[in-house]
Amino acid sequence: MSPTEPNPASTEPSTVAMAIAKTPKPPYVVVIFSSIRTGDDGDGYASMAEEMDRLAAAQPGYLGVESARDVDGFGLTASYWTDEQAARAWKGVAEHAVAQRLGRERWYRSYRVRIATVTREYGF
Amino acid sequence: MSPTEPNPASTEPSTVAMAIAKTPKPPYVVVIFSSIRTGDDGDGYASMAEEMDRLAAAQPGYLGVESARDVDGFGLTASYWTDEQAARAWKGVAEHAVAQRLGRERWYRSYRVRIATVTREYGF
Repeated sequence: MSPTEPNPASTEPSTVAMAIAKTPKPPYVVVIFSSIRTGDDGDGYASMAEEMDRLAAAQPGYLGVESARDVDGFGLTASYWTDEQAARAWKGVAEHAVAQRLGRERWYRSYRVRIATVTREYGF
Repeated sequence: MSPTEPNPASTEPSTVAMAIAKTPKPPYVVVIFSSIRTGDDGDGYASMAEEMDRLAAAQPGYLGVESARDVDGFGLTASYWTDEQAARAWKGVAEHAVAQRLGRERWYRSYRVRIATVTREYGF
């Protein structure tokens, strides 16, 4: 299978494979979005998710995004921002975009958003 | 397929379906673990992951954990702690447990750990 072909095992169109975000030295801000999908409207959801990624990357203060969803529908997205103001602005844009698409109740069984300040990081 | 059967498309034994963690009023601390799996040693990895969940839940200051991994191997885990001291203690326990299993290079292509203080949260 060529890397440009969609994965036939997935029920939703695949997006670009995720990489670990290249974030600067802390402090910076993370918005953690935890959600459980309904499983309904896979096409509408996938096109919204791609639009949200594009929208986020165009916002002032954007540092990167990481996202994963289990086969059972539980998902986590971490978006990284230079500061609290940029994260708040993104919250407004994201809520407006989802509201316009009337998707919240259709796409998510439940979700939780947490805004946090990163103080330390390390890895390999 | 019945919800109790493992998904045959998954290369690793499925664990308990995730729920959104019931965290208290902020502030509290989150440890975000972003990783890319090698795809090697699925059985060893799954048994380690279950052991880590059990270990975490037994630590002082544990508030909950959320975890998701894409079919392409990208994963995010958010573990929640009462304070920085509890999160630091967990870091020591987790590193020791992984080191004992000699799994870091075998299981992960790369990873990043970020420690952050949650200041606000909301959801539905």
